[in-house]
Amino acid sequence: MTTVFIKGFGLIGSSLARAISIQHPEDQIIASDINEQELTFALDNHLATTVVHNFSNVEQADVIILAGPVSVIIEDIKTLLTKNLKSDVIVTDVGSTKKNVMQAAQLLIKKGVTFIGGHPMAGSHLTGAVSGKADLFRNAYYFLITNNCPAATTKLEDLLSGLGVHWLSVDADEHDKIVAQISHVPHVIAAALINQTANDLGDQMKLAAGGLKSVTRIAASDPTMWTAIMKGNQQLIKEQLENYIRYLQNIDELIKNGKEKQLFEFFSQAQKNRQKLDQD
Amino acid sequence: MTTVFIKGFGLIGSSLARAISIQHPEDQIIASDINEQELTFALDNHLATTVVHNFSNVEQADVIILAGPVSVIIEDIKTLLTKNLKSDVIVTDVGSTKKNVMQAAQLLIKKGVTFIGGHPMAGSHLTGAVSGKADLFRNAYYFLITNNCPAATTKLEDLLSGLGVHWLSVDADEHDKIVAQISHVPHVIAAALINQTANDLGDQMKLAAGGLKSVTRIAASDPTMWTAIMKGNQQLIKEQLENYIRYLQNIDELIKNGKEKQLFEFFSQAQKNRQKLDQD
Repeated sequence: MTTVFIKGFGLIGSSLARAISIQHPEDQIIASDINEQELTFALDNHLATTVVHNFSNVEQADVIILAGPVSVIIEDIKTLLTKNLKSDVIVTDVGSTKKNVMQAAQLLIKKGVTFIGGHPMAGSHLTGAVSGKADLFRNAYYFLITNNCPAATTKLEDLLSGLGVHWLSVDADEHDKIVAQISHVPHVIAAALINQTANDLGDQMKLAAGGLKSVTRIAASDPTMWTAIMKGNQQLIKEQLENYIRYLQNIDELIKNGKEKQLFEFFSQAQKNRQKLDQD
Repeated sequence: MTTVFIKGFGLIGSSLARAISIQHPEDQIIASDINEQELTFALDNHLATTVVHNFSNVEQADVIILAGPVSVIIEDIKTLLTKNLKSDVIVTDVGSTKKNVMQAAQLLIKKGVTFIGGHPMAGSHLTGAVSGKADLFRNAYYFLITNNCPAATTKLEDLLSGLGVHWLSVDADEHDKIVAQISHVPHVIAAALINQTANDLGDQMKLAAGGLKSVTRIAASDPTMWTAIMKGNQQLIKEQLENYIRYLQNIDELIKNGKEKQLFEFFSQAQKNRQKLDQD
């Protein structure tokens, strides 16, 4: 029997709890949240055996999952430094950037704690334990910064096997570059396009058919979260965004100079590359 | 009874024919296409009373609809110059750019022919008469370059009333700027992002969750068509794309300098602007 302590019992934390319960019904789950409503929901729906505030009872945990936003994860790591944790405890997190989390975790690691960074990749505009589900991440990629701890990694993957994810070991820098390119930069691009269009066209923007709508769909997401992500992965977002701007300037040159052959090549490559995304 | 000549009997031409037949079952429709298959389909499905190649019988037409791509429309206008058209004929088109079409149409107009430019706004990746339908453009905007011909405009709108579109009178320059911003630039942005991501990440691109996929969805479209659009609306695409690049460079500065307050404002505006697109 494993005792799992989940700090932050919202969409992600509660989904992990559900997946653990299905695969390992004998495990104990301690749910912690600052929001009383999430804890009541957890008890009412039998998603946790115990609910606590802050880190009460964390000393009993075999696995600690930090499931808040990155800024909270970093504070939580500092708090864990002051706790008397089990000697073989495994600590993990679900933050969307990994270099800053792994840096914060160094103090824990120096104290002899096993820390494995984690990031399940899936988007949902929903929030809260009420929206969680065991298959939220099914078939998605789940990055792990394994920190050369194969045994602990195996244990963690087994604990979360009910999720049905594809595990992927990367280092923190590689992770942050990948998410900058496939998630953070696309978000900036979409937000910039909808703002520039609104500034330039005003109400005529509403004439848009599918093109503008589909490119800018993700720009409707939570501004607080995205501002935090810009800070959390600042350097790599800047680098990848500037790569993108340079590429776009090259295409602008092709358009300006009427280079039809190269433009055809550009659009053909785009068609092929985009089709790859929908293949397995 | 009106005789309508439709040149180009693919997705758009056949959809217009369907809408005309529903609202005006007494009208005669002459379908013209270079593709024998489209003409057979038209006859088999009673979408046309007569089928022809090129412009045979165009002298009988009260309304001529040029429903090919822009390059073909421009050639068709030149051919119509050599035909003995009815004195009160109305000629219209469905091309995705309007300044080049209206320029080509000047020679017809000088000969006393009424020409009204048109552009129904709706996206479909499908092609051919088999994919057409009477409600293809329902509730979409249909731009008209009315050229100061109110009576002919009213007649055309009545003929096509079965489409259920919102009619919108603009001039050709205004039209081309709007579509540059809401359709052509978004396409370039999406194609550039998927190519830059593939160049930079290779197979790791496949780790993408929703963000990259949704921003780049339209990049899978036909490269021949998009290369032609870059030529057809070159100047305005270039201008709007360069506006966008400058805006993106400003956001890059905010990220680089950690301007959280302004970044929050940027993402908040984007959220509000994007939500407006889904209203009404």
